[in-house]
Amino acid sequence: MSGQNSDQLHRTTLAIYTSIMEQFNPGLQRLVTLGNNYIQAFQALAVTSEAYFSALSKMGEQAMQTMSSRLMGDVLIQISDSQRRLTNELEGVFRWFHSEVLREMDDNVRLDKEYILNSRRRYETEVRNQASALERQMRRGVPQDGSEYVHFLRECQREALKEEERRYRFLAEKHSSFTQSIAYLMNKTGGGLQNRAEGWKDLVNHTRESRPRTPSRVEDSILDVNRWAEQPLGTVPSRGVESLF
Amino acid sequence: MSGQNSDQLHRTTLAIYTSIMEQFNPGLQRLVTLGNNYIQAFQALAVTSEAYFSALSKMGEQAMQTMSSRLMGDVLIQISDSQRRLTNELEGVFRWFHSEVLREMDDNVRLDKEYILNSRRRYETEVRNQASALERQMRRGVPQDGSEYVHFLRECQREALKEEERRYRFLAEKHSSFTQSIAYLMNKTGGGLQNRAEGWKDLVNHTRESRPRTPSRVEDSILDVNRWAEQPLGTVPSRGVESLF
Repeated sequence: MSGQNSDQLHRTTLAIYTSIMEQFNPGLQRLVTLGNNYIQAFQALAVTSEAYFSALSKMGEQAMQTMSSRLMGDVLIQISDSQRRLTNELEGVFRWFHSEVLREMDDNVRLDKEYILNSRRRYETEVRNQASALERQMRRGVPQDGSEYVHFLRECQREALKEEERRYRFLAEKHSSFTQSIAYLMNKTGGGLQNRAEGWKDLVNHTRESRPRTPSRVEDSILDVNRWAEQPLGTVPSRGVESLF
Repeated sequence: MSGQNSDQLHRTTLAIYTSIMEQFNPGLQRLVTLGNNYIQAFQALAVTSEAYFSALSKMGEQAMQTMSSRLMGDVLIQISDSQRRLTNELEGVFRWFHSEVLREMDDNVRLDKEYILNSRRRYETEVRNQASALERQMRRGVPQDGSEYVHFLRECQREALKEEERRYRFLAEKHSSFTQSIAYLMNKTGGGLQNRAEGWKDLVNHTRESRPRTPSRVEDSILDVNRWAEQPLGTVPSRGVESLF
């Protein structure tokens, strides 16, 4: 060995390999597990969303068969369709996350264990060879300043740092792509969705305004619980009990 | 009774009450149950998302402590924070959905059963009273064309239709508001998220370009599996086995 400098270089290079093996790769493996849970939870959400909006769509079909609420039925079916499309698109993002992030992380971490272990063994062997060659030459009296050996150690460290860097870079790239694909979906869908939702509100409001109202009675105004934000109703007996709606 | 017209009016009015009681309200009750499942599934997703991005953030903190990947660490922490904020905002939308849609549907359907039953009973009693008064008058020889009775039946039907309509309108309004709140979140968040994600990609790419590359060897180029989309590495022994990354 050639003093503190090469010892330090050697130790930090080993520490980089150790950190990849004992921190990065187990962390990546844990991410794969947690990511699979995340995807399963999304799939469960998609199932409950489908059940909800399919039931809402059926309410829309019921409304289509009434004399009073055909337009509302149409709106309810459109809302359901629109939510289902959104869930489908999100399913696409999660499929991408599975195939392009989780599966690649899983493949990499599986293959990396052996690769990094071998790299580290080869490095250690080469360090031993070079160190003993240096010592042999020095014992034989061949003049050596050790600078070639230090240069070799520096190169090895530089490569180890690159290994580490490319692993974190992969992680950062994959996850910024994931965020990007969510943002892309939001930007693609958000504007149209907002317009449609406003259109539905207008349509629905229009049905309220376009009907003639019966004149309200004082006692109705007082008793009216009016949960559905409607005007109090008229004088027919069916409105004799207090209104909940 | 006064002929087919009033009979028909009476039957369809009863059918409207029946439809509210036997179709609309049970449908609404079912939506409440499905909606609660939907919210529970979202909460489960939020938990798995938090676990995933908290683990990713820890990887970022690890990277911050390296010599090679501080910037990547910073990016990973930012990505995690950004996804957590998004989940928090979605939690707000689902909280709103719970309090403003599901809870109101649940309250309404609970109160409506008795209300609609009473309305229908009162309507039937009033119809019987008016019909027998009409018959009594006709028996006494008081001239009656029944038009007042038909007018009464029409008004009752009009009110029953309004009851039905306001119930479907409530459903359509609440759900277009739900879609609107999702769309609002998408529009508010999507643009900034896309910009940030692009910024992260640029930063991460910059780390790749700004490092000097060691010249590649032919055998490395051939063997390089290059899973992390990196250039083949240099001549140090740690790259002696084939590269997985």
